[in-house]
Amino acid sequence: MPIRVTVWHEHRHEKTSKAVQAVYPKGMQNAFKKAIEEHLGDEVKVRVALLDDAEHGLSDKILKNTDVMTWWGHGAHGEVKDEIAQKVAQRVREGMGLIVLHSGHYSKPFKLLMGTNCHLKWREAGEKERLWNVSPGHPITAGLSKDYIELEHEEMYGEHFDIPDPDELVFVSWFEGGEIFRSGCVWKRGAGKVFYFRPGHETFPTYFHPDIKRVIANAVKYVAPATDTAPYRNGSPNIKEPLSPIATKHVVDEALHRH
Amino acid sequence: MPIRVTVWHEHRHEKTSKAVQAVYPKGMQNAFKKAIEEHLGDEVKVRVALLDDAEHGLSDKILKNTDVMTWWGHGAHGEVKDEIAQKVAQRVREGMGLIVLHSGHYSKPFKLLMGTNCHLKWREAGEKERLWNVSPGHPITAGLSKDYIELEHEEMYGEHFDIPDPDELVFVSWFEGGEIFRSGCVWKRGAGKVFYFRPGHETFPTYFHPDIKRVIANAVKYVAPATDTAPYRNGSPNIKEPLSPIATKHVVDEALHRH
Amino acid sequence: MPIRVTVWHEHRHEKTSKAVQAVYPKGMQNAFKKAIEEHLGDEVKVRVALLDDAEHGLSDKILKNTDVMTWWGHGAHGEVKDEIAQKVAQRVREGMGLIVLHSGHYSKPFKLLMGTNCHLKWREAGEKERLWNVSPGHPITAGLSKDYIELEHEEMYGEHFDIPDPDELVFVSWFEGGEIFRSGCVWKRGAGKVFYFRPGHETFPTYFHPDIKRVIANAVKYVAPATDTAPYRNGSPNIKEPLSPIATKHVVDEALHRH
Amino acid sequence: MPIRVTVWHEHRHEKTSKAVQAVYPKGMQNAFKKAIEEHLGDEVKVRVALLDDAEHGLSDKILKNTDVMTWWGHGAHGEVKDEIAQKVAQRVREGMGLIVLHSGHYSKPFKLLMGTNCHLKWREAGEKERLWNVSPGHPITAGLSKDYIELEHEEMYGEHFDIPDPDELVFVSWFEGGEIFRSGCVWKRGAGKVFYFRPGHETFPTYFHPDIKRVIANAVKYVAPATDTAPYRNGSPNIKEPLSPIATKHVVDEALHRH
Repeated sequence: MPIRVTVWHEHRHEKTSKAVQAVYPKGMQNAFKKAIEEHLGDEVKVRVALLDDAEHGLSDKILKNTDVMTWWGHGAHGEVKDEIAQKVAQRVREGMGLIVLHSGHYSKPFKLLMGTNCHLKWREAGEKERLWNVSPGHPITAGLSKDYIELEHEEMYGEHFDIPDPDELVFVSWFEGGEIFRSGCVWKRGAGKVFYFRPGHETFPTYFHPDIKRVIANAVKYVAPATDTAPYRNGSPNIKEPLSPIATKHVVDEALHRH
Repeated sequence: MPIRVTVWHEHRHEKTSKAVQAVYPKGMQNAFKKAIEEHLGDEVKVRVALLDDAEHGLSDKILKNTDVMTWWGHGAHGEVKDEIAQKVAQRVREGMGLIVLHSGHYSKPFKLLMGTNCHLKWREAGEKERLWNVSPGHPITAGLSKDYIELEHEEMYGEHFDIPDPDELVFVSWFEGGEIFRSGCVWKRGAGKVFYFRPGHETFPTYFHPDIKRVIANAVKYVAPATDTAPYRNGSPNIKEPLSPIATKHVVDEALHRH
Repeated sequence: MPIRVTVWHEHRHEKTSKAVQAVYPKGMQNAFKKAIEEHLGDEVKVRVALLDDAEHGLSDKILKNTDVMTWWGHGAHGEVKDEIAQKVAQRVREGMGLIVLHSGHYSKPFKLLMGTNCHLKWREAGEKERLWNVSPGHPITAGLSKDYIELEHEEMYGEHFDIPDPDELVFVSWFEGGEIFRSGCVWKRGAGKVFYFRPGHETFPTYFHPDIKRVIANAVKYVAPATDTAPYRNGSPNIKEPLSPIATKHVVDEALHRH
Repeated sequence: MPIRVTVWHEHRHEKTSKAVQAVYPKGMQNAFKKAIEEHLGDEVKVRVALLDDAEHGLSDKILKNTDVMTWWGHGAHGEVKDEIAQKVAQRVREGMGLIVLHSGHYSKPFKLLMGTNCHLKWREAGEKERLWNVSPGHPITAGLSKDYIELEHEEMYGEHFDIPDPDELVFVSWFEGGEIFRSGCVWKRGAGKVFYFRPGHETFPTYFHPDIKRVIANAVKYVAPATDTAPYRNGSPNIKEPLSPIATKHVVDEALHRH
């Protein structure tokens, strides 16, 4: 059964900025979709959901039938309804993989899952970025041509990046202007995995770069839920019957204990 | 300068349950305060804040002047105002230490900081619990009499406990009825630390146990902010001037790029 | 291409103990092989290597052509040649997966990879063990019938288990006699992965248990090297040519600097 | 009681290189000692041990009475006796803190504790290095003047650095020539802590830099053993008497089981 991918995209810059239109004439969402399909073919089934779609394109039915979601947003994080952001975060806990791209660091689902503010530094100077692979052997780095990815022009993101210590650190970026950044990070949340991947300012053709496309496709496979795992337990059951006998049992007088 | 500790307590069971009154006649808050003062003396200054105090006892001024907070709540998590829960979580990111006790696993600040649902299993049979030290050498375990803490009667909490993988796992509990639980866990969030410590059902005298008191006091010192560290940066500044010269600079035509 | 698995086994108890012969008449190595083949079929190609084989069955050629190795040893760790233990550890760093079983905690390759003494407590009372899944969603737990595995009779291993904090903690064991143990742990070393799995005392039919067999088979897939990743760099190259220009260059007078 | 620090130094370059003599006329060991004493005063008692001392200055008595050791070596790692390297590693497991500096990445004790080859890339071009603080709030970063440390001239070390994923990542370096490096890393081993700190090529005055000195002093306090913790258990005891009764007990016929 193919991995069911939902590419979520804010899709606003393409409507208002000629610079962005020039780079992504078919929209950034199309670049994400293509990158994933190009590498994974029949292994995936990709649909697109946009902020301005009904329910942001994320109905309960679509959420339920999504194995992996990619998320790019920037200027309109505040327009994503809290209720839907909560549902996306909850789907991750239930096992859905989430790939958060670039300025999605400030998106509601990502912040809900991290528990931090996700602040960083930034500079739009179109400088050079090199993403160094600090985890060779990691499936997300499979097939890369070198031990770093070089992007001729990118926006800078700098530390401190206010995230929980990643469960796995895969890439660290070097920026020409002097900063570094933890730019490829994996966390587990509930039964699901989150991958944050830094590059992708909207005015640069980053998502057409062969290695960037490959990383996104690799990540889709990596964060996809493992087959045949137990369903996420969404609740806290009272296990009245112990598995083993209890000799020291001490039951508080119920008449004394009202709560 | 002493560590400024705020003991936050729900303080409802003591008002409605004779069983709880019998165990904690002066309120559980008093037991927390005593445990900390007994071990740390002049190293701490402890105040108490209760759910039913104005602003739950957590005004901006008090929050700002708290280095470490302990948190016990159970039946009234929903009555904690969202705004105040958010402020507590934000203070942790800014450097405050937070010690979450027992049923505080479902408290709003803890859930906000974890990004997960914090579900677990439970059983009230008053069975035996042993907390095993899996991190000897950890400051939180200093002065313990053995490599485990034995509690004759406790509520059981069982896995899966829906938390992010702890940055440090200190204790794992064994329960007579057959379950285990990750019962001493540390996470960093922003510039602050969180310690979750499992034991402490309200009908048992757990917080009078010498080793439990010691762990709580040890944890106060461990999660207290380090002196002289840089203030938390609460925002994402634009660093227009690079630290090193940028040769590949590429400025997008501003006229084209409106956002 | 199938995963090339080498089942390494000490194979001494079967020769000297009627109790072990009674449980594993064809040798424990056969149980490992069967468990893996039964679940993975054409996805694997399994060979067996024994301590008493020439070079312990681990010639350079076999090592080079092994993707995943399982390791069971107990009484004869000292007979494994240091040189071969070093080669096994080095193959892990180069990307080979290693599954260390039960008393293999004291094996030379495991200790070399951990950097610790791997001490623990133990008791041979044939007591009940329950391995709790603390990482639902983890591929190693796929297909398990419950959220724990119950073994009617096992040797006890207790904490503190002297290992580095695992990169991933998958199972924690409960023992009837009162102890707990981190019994399913993953670490990365170089480009390779190590999975330690606790159960499997030689006098009990643990390796015939359906869930234990499944975990071992799952682990084979999990620690197998990802395809198409960069080869492990076994050395520290001098990168004379910088990727970006260096303005502050400061070359020490070579005449002054002899080393 | 003061922290008992042993500064271990190879002390060979100072004897053969005029460039090193010019920078460290009193030897690098003196710079380490001064940095620690200057910041910690009465809190420490620092002694120096050199490779060419008897037993490399590391007799059993000195090892036993060392709380924290710093280690700088480069050209003569191979001359450190295996037996003494093993003793140093074992002392770490027993609780001693170890601070490994710069080219000490290839030292025997560090490699024994890591379980990896500790390979990296390097370039001696005297380029600029910036160490970014990725863990604000961490005690090792206390008192730093900025969120990065800038070194005008340093040797470059580049990724992939073949180490286990650090338990805590504190600094990441940016190099002018285009590389990044995980340059401040903490691991626990047994009851002890290891801090690796990258900078410090022998021909540059790095160890006179105020922030570098402060980090080393901070690290001494951070890796020092916590007082009053349980002693390291150096063995695997047989716990014949269970803590809780065992009903399912199954003793294998001893006559059948010889090992």
